[in-house]
Order: sequence, then structure tokens, then C-alpha cells
Amino acid sequence: MSADLSLVKQSAVTLAAKIKSREVSAVEVLDAHLAQIEKFNPQLNAIVTLDADGARQRAQEIDQEIAAGRDPGPLAGLPVLIKDVTLTKGLRTTFASPLYKDFVPDVDATPVARLRQAGAIILGKTNTPEFATGATTFNDVFGITRNPWDPTKTPSGSSGGSAAAAASGMAPLAHGTDFGCSVRMPASFCGLVGLRPTPGLIPNEPMHLPWDPGQVHGPLARSAEDAALMLDAMSGLDDTWPLSFAPPWASALDLVKATQDAKGKRIAYVSDIAGLGVDTEVDALCRAGAQRLANFGAQVEDITFDCSDGFDAYKVLRGEWMVGQQIERLAMVEKFGANLSGNVKAGLALTPREIAEAELMREKVWSRFKTFFAQYDFLITPCSPVAPFAAEEKFPTQINGKKLENYIDWIAPCFLITLVGFPAGSVPAGLTQSGLPVGMQIVGKRFSEPQILGLCKLAQQAHPIGWPPLS
Amino acid sequence: MSADLSLVKQSAVTLAAKIKSREVSAVEVLDAHLAQIEKFNPQLNAIVTLDADGARQRAQEIDQEIAAGRDPGPLAGLPVLIKDVTLTKGLRTTFASPLYKDFVPDVDATPVARLRQAGAIILGKTNTPEFATGATTFNDVFGITRNPWDPTKTPSGSSGGSAAAAASGMAPLAHGTDFGCSVRMPASFCGLVGLRPTPGLIPNEPMHLPWDPGQVHGPLARSAEDAALMLDAMSGLDDTWPLSFAPPWASALDLVKATQDAKGKRIAYVSDIAGLGVDTEVDALCRAGAQRLANFGAQVEDITFDCSDGFDAYKVLRGEWMVGQQIERLAMVEKFGANLSGNVKAGLALTPREIAEAELMREKVWSRFKTFFAQYDFLITPCSPVAPFAAEEKFPTQINGKKLENYIDWIAPCFLITLVGFPAGSVPAGLTQSGLPVGMQIVGKRFSEPQILGLCKLAQQAHPIGWPPLS
Repeated sequence: MSADLSLVKQSAVTLAAKIKSREVSAVEVLDAHLAQIEKFNPQLNAIVTLDADGARQRAQEIDQEIAAGRDPGPLAGLPVLIKDVTLTKGLRTTFASPLYKDFVPDVDATPVARLRQAGAIILGKTNTPEFATGATTFNDVFGITRNPWDPTKTPSGSSGGSAAAAASGMAPLAHGTDFGCSVRMPASFCGLVGLRPTPGLIPNEPMHLPWDPGQVHGPLARSAEDAALMLDAMSGLDDTWPLSFAPPWASALDLVKATQDAKGKRIAYVSDIAGLGVDTEVDALCRAGAQRLANFGAQVEDITFDCSDGFDAYKVLRGEWMVGQQIERLAMVEKFGANLSGNVKAGLALTPREIAEAELMREKVWSRFKTFFAQYDFLITPCSPVAPFAAEEKFPTQINGKKLENYIDWIAPCFLITLVGFPAGSVPAGLTQSGLPVGMQIVGKRFSEPQILGLCKLAQQAHPIGWPPLS
Repeated sequence: MSADLSLVKQSAVTLAAKIKSREVSAVEVLDAHLAQIEKFNPQLNAIVTLDADGARQRAQEIDQEIAAGRDPGPLAGLPVLIKDVTLTKGLRTTFASPLYKDFVPDVDATPVARLRQAGAIILGKTNTPEFATGATTFNDVFGITRNPWDPTKTPSGSSGGSAAAAASGMAPLAHGTDFGCSVRMPASFCGLVGLRPTPGLIPNEPMHLPWDPGQVHGPLARSAEDAALMLDAMSGLDDTWPLSFAPPWASALDLVKATQDAKGKRIAYVSDIAGLGVDTEVDALCRAGAQRLANFGAQVEDITFDCSDGFDAYKVLRGEWMVGQQIERLAMVEKFGANLSGNVKAGLALTPREIAEAELMREKVWSRFKTFFAQYDFLITPCSPVAPFAAEEKFPTQINGKKLENYIDWIAPCFLITLVGFPAGSVPAGLTQSGLPVGMQIVGKRFSEPQILGLCKLAQQAHPIGWPPLS
């Protein structure tokens, strides 16, 4: 294979245009990415199931369609990776669980079907913890995924495989799901743009608890425009799906492309919404990242905004959600890994009163955001309180010297946003002195996705972080 | 007062146009409705708090604004009644509970604020069972509300006061809330058009459990166009409110006005979605009502479609919801009436496993609707399995001779639709031989409100039922 590896360093938007204009073929683009995967995946372990043959066949079809003058869609010929908790028709989907290690679905999840329909080539599946339960990426089926910025570090999780793959150039676009932090935190650790959209923007079928706004799908990409391209392909009304609605824009990509400044935008930088403390270097990088938006005309203020009283509410609602997700597998709970079984058991021990109290607390935290949004358009806060840490660790042992008690508290800066349901993007704020990426989370009102991605674009433009060593 | 009582027999759309063109004044319209209230409310007990002075002051302001060439909004000068579980700033809101019999809120609920902003005059509050918990209308604060078609009968509930008032001409428009059946069933019993919209179309603030799609606000009116007018005023994005979205239409009213036929619409008539049996006369009236839509070009089929397996799921989720709604008042549970305290206690006894099993069952019933909607556009079924019954009874004692065990089962034809989250309208199908109205429920996909109301309009046009004796 003498693939043109420069192709893997190009944006999804550029590649899509070149494929459509026949400047390059979908097969050439695929071959470049396959070569990149061959080069880096053994070390990173980001992709756990690769469908090279299926992808090549589809790439050839796309090239033929374009040659015949047809338009196979906005993502035509782009290789896309799907997180291994999301169903892909005919392609092994393990949920990263030994219980499903040979499972091959006979349907696509809606976001996957929509990506295919937009012309994307589903290239393979990416690693994640068992049933996406964890904020790092390892499991008993496929082992540990590593960070292309430093393979001794974790890419975070649970969409860690997707993030490591997109960051290292194995695919221009990768899919993630986000319940606690699972798109945003891997985006932060791997130097990507990741988006947790407003629940309902991307229908989430099949999923138990379809009325629950916790778990959403979202794009992981190297630029805001690429993330918008992928978002557009997955968004849109399904008139029978609970929570689904049509986006109030025709094209998020066009809006992001058109974004030239942040004039009039009122932005608050909050160092620590979770009361956990934030690593000093992480805080400084994110504050600087937020401040740079002032150069584009935004009004940026440094304020305190404490949501730490939402901790328990999230944990209770997460427990209820875990029971709901696993209701058909409750008899197997002892066969789950420690993270998942612990979560399910905690959920089973809840009382209706505790659940109602958690809902009340969620409402209180949400009310605080409502007040916030009367004064500001966006909240910017570090995605993670720490920089990427060792890939073997289950969670960071400390934040600024303060010990952490469990595997979930450290992701509170993300899950507190999940709790209140607002969309949030992650964009690189810069690199630590050790050369590790740090992402800032941009939180906006419902349906502010194009604006959030517009700010991500400006942030990247003002302070590009370049490519990781393994890419 | 020598009010022109013919005004109370005119539609909201007509009255709004006449007020705007100064053919009549808002004060004249108000006076007519006040006279009608004086005439019929003592017997019907529909309105429990009347703000005649505030309404007159506002009517005078509206008239002045119009005289000055300003546009006070699409509902300018229309008297509107609000259900007494929904907050009205400065106007007593009792929740029909002795615990709140003197409570005066200092804020409007969002739908009320939007009605005011559209120019509506909030004329008073309407009767409902304690915290809207019940499908008839009586409580310890205000007593029994009666049906204008026959005052020995119940208007149903829980928005029974609103329905009795709108049907008897005390106001052209009345507001309701719907969790189990509470807009649809009173519309059915009182011969009105009532709409339970897609959750999120009308923001529902303040409310505990803002993420829950169960309780929604909806219009009660004498015609589909009037219901659309009111729906438009209450709809619209609140970009911080959970579930909120912008309607995918500019004006539901314009769409309903433009509806001339039902060509191409695939409609299924289902006699009994709940497996409870349906009164023979009710069934015959609704089947004929559905069949009449074939005259407008719809394809109408009579099919069976059983959702009785959703019974327990709804009751469990309702129990959880009751606990969530009353979480701050749990210490008072013994002071609640029997319906409410029974519901709350049932909720407190639930386990997370039962809740998850109920969610799984909801998903299964919802999947059945998804399959249905691949084949049909609308489902039509009787709102209530029985015609209006004695006002003193808590629930009908039998359906076609089959005894009923509790106060909630009989509303299953409505609550099974609540369970799956689709919008549903109620429109009169006809009158029984005793002259009592019977409504049919039209259920459509998400965001099909203008189409549902369009079908309601055609149904009314094909078979008008006229005015009740008390009007």
C-alpha cells in the first residue's frame, strides 16, 4: 500500500469537498486512513473492530456514484468510526463487555444510519469501558486505550477510543456518546472538539429509557467545522422518537463557517463549578482560552458559580438510569465489571423519596443556570480538573494535592452540565508544559450548538495546538 | 348591566377580530361574559375565583391601546380562564386544596404569562380536584362542578371547571392541564375541542420534575380554530426550559384555517385501546365521527390496537411523579384528600426495579405506536369509555355492565396516550340519545398538532353539536 498519508491530516470538510470534486477518490482517502491505523493503532488500541473490506467496497461505490454524477451526501466517502456501545448493522458491537464479545447487531442505531445515509463510510468500532461506564478507557475484552499525545496517558473516556483515533488521524470524524462526560472529557484529553448536544437533537434509538435526557450522541473531530459537519448529518426530527425535534437551523456547518467574531457575546469563565479544586495549570490554560475570546469581541468575565450541590442528585439519577439500562440483564449483575455492577447495585438500593429529592435538587441547580443565562450567553469551565494521567489508573488520585475518593467525582465539571441538560462543547485551550492537551467546556442555552461550535472555531483559530506526536 | 349576550356565542377568533377592528370593545366583550357567568356559574360552579375588577381594568387598557393604534396581540381583549392548579400572579391559586385555600402567587406560570402577553385578559380561576388528581371535578374547598349539558352530570376532570365554563359561554377560551386525561376528557364530556400537545411545545414553568413529559398545558375551546389560536399564544421556545423547543410552524391557526380536506390521511379507528370495553353508544358515535372524515378524503380503517399492557406502567410512573410533585409536602400527606394521598403513598412504596420495569413496558407500548405510525397518520379512539355520568360519583361504576374497580382505570384510553407521549386532541363526535356530548380522541405523531386540529375542524364542520342547554 503506498497511501498518501498527507490525506489524514486534512479536515473532514476539505476531504469531503475533494472527494466530491474527484480531486481524490474515496478509496484513496480510505487507504490513507487504513495505513494510519496500521501505523498507530497497535500502540494506541483505539479501534477494536475494523471493517476494511466493507469500507473499501463502500468507498468504491461512493466513487462510482460521484463519477455517475450523483450526490451521495455531505459526508460522502469520509471514513467514520463508531463507539462500540452503539449498534452497527453487521459489524460487531461488544458494549466492551465479555457478555457481548461476539454480538453482531442486525440494525444500525439511528445516528449510524444517518451517517451512512449522508455518505459516511463506517470504518470500524472504537474502544470504551464496559457499557460506557467509566471516564477512562479499558475493559476485559480489549484492554487499555492510550493517548496519542503521550501513550503512557489515558485518552479519558468513555469515548476514549474514538477520541484517540480521531486525534491520531485514523479517521477524520469519530462518534461518541455522552452521559457523564464521555464525549467532552476524551475531547479534552486528546485535543479535539467534542460536542454534547441538546438531548433530542440526535435521536438515540435504540435505547432503553428513551425519555431520559442523560445519554446523547455527539461528534468528535479535530475542528469545530468538522464537528458541525458531523452534527448536521446526525441531527433532525424523528417524529416518533421521544424528545426528538427538528433543529432550528438549516445547517450548523454554515453557521460555524460564517462565524468571524464573538461580538456582543457575554461569557463567564468559572474555574470550578464542582467545588473539587482544579489543577493550577489546567485552570490557567482554560482561563487564558476563555480570555482570548475577548479578542473576537466577547465580553469575558471571571466569576464564581458553584453547582457542587448537584453531586448527589446526579449520582442518584445515574443509579436509576443504570437500573433502567440494565433492566433486562439484572440477573447477570454479578458478571458485570466492578464499575458497572457497583452502579447498578447502587441504583437498586434507591428509594422513590431519594429519587424525588434528587429531582428537586436537579431543579434547583437548573434554576441557578436559568438565572445565569439571564446574565450570560455562555459558561466556560475546564472540562476536566486535571490534565491527562496514567493510562493504567482508574481515576486521578488527586487534584492539586487533594485526594479523590472515587472514580466518578473528578468528572463532576462535566456531569453537572449533563444534570441540567444544556448543550456543551469541548475545545482545546492549550497544552500543558508536558505537552498534554487541556480542553475547556463551553456551555450554552438549549439549541446554541452552532454558537458553541462557532466559539470553538475562534478558540482554535486563536490558539492552535497542532498534532500529537503519534499522528 | 345590559350586556350583549350574543357576544358569548361568538368564536374567539371572531371576537378577537372584532375587538381589534373596534367593532366591539374589550369591555363589552368582558361584560357579556360577566353576565353569562352571573347567570350560569351559580349552578355550574365552574369558576371559583373571579377577577372582575382586574379584568375590567385590563379590558379598558386594551381598548385604549387599540384606539391608539397599537397591537396588543392576537388574543387582545379575549377573556380567558385558568385552571386553579396553575399560578396566576396576584390571583388566588388554591390547587383545590384546603392547604392552599388562601394562597396568592407572586408569579405567573409561563403559559399564563404568554396568554397575558398575547393580550388575553385573565378573568378567573376554574375548579379542579385537589392538585388535579382526579377525572371528575370536586374538592373540599369549592365543592362540585357540573356539566352545562346536564347539571346532574360531571364535566369530567381534572380541567372540569375550565371545560364547563367554556362550553357554557362564560369565556371563549379556557386553559387546562393534562396528565392522565385532564384536558381531553373534560373536552369530551362538555362538547369542546381540547388538545394535549407534544410535551415541550408549551413550557411548563414552574413545575417540579421539569424533565418529565407527563403534565402539559393545553387549550379548551369551542372550535378547533379557537384552540389553535390559544395554542399559538402558549407555544414557543424557552431556551432554558427542559424539553422546550420552537414549534415547526409559524401559526397553527393559519394551518387549521387552511385545512379544507383530509386527502391522503390514513386514519385508524380503534374502539378500545385499553381493553376495558367501551359503552356501545359511545363507540358507535366515535366510529361514525371517524368515518365522516372519509368524506373529506381520508382513508379510514377500523382496526384493533391493544395497549392494555401499558396500564401498570402508567400507574407506576404516575406514582413516581406524584412523589416528585409532592416532595416538599410529604410530611403533610395525611392532610391530603384520599385520591392524592393514596397516589403519593403508592409512589413511595415503589422500588427502582419496578420503576425500570415500568419504563421498559412504556418503551414496548411506544414501539407499538411507532409501528402503527409507519402505517397510519392518526389514531382515533373514544376519549372516554362512557358518556357523562352523575356529578356526585367519583368514577363510573361500570362500562357496558362490567364493574370498575378504581377511580383511574376508566381514563386509560387517555392515559395510555400520555404514557407514550404523542399529542392528542379531543373533538365532539356527537351527542348521545340523552343529549350528552361524546368526544373522540385524535392521536398523531410528534408535532402533528395543526393536523390534529385540522381534523377536529372537519369533524365539527361535518357534525356540529350546537350549544348546551345551560349557555
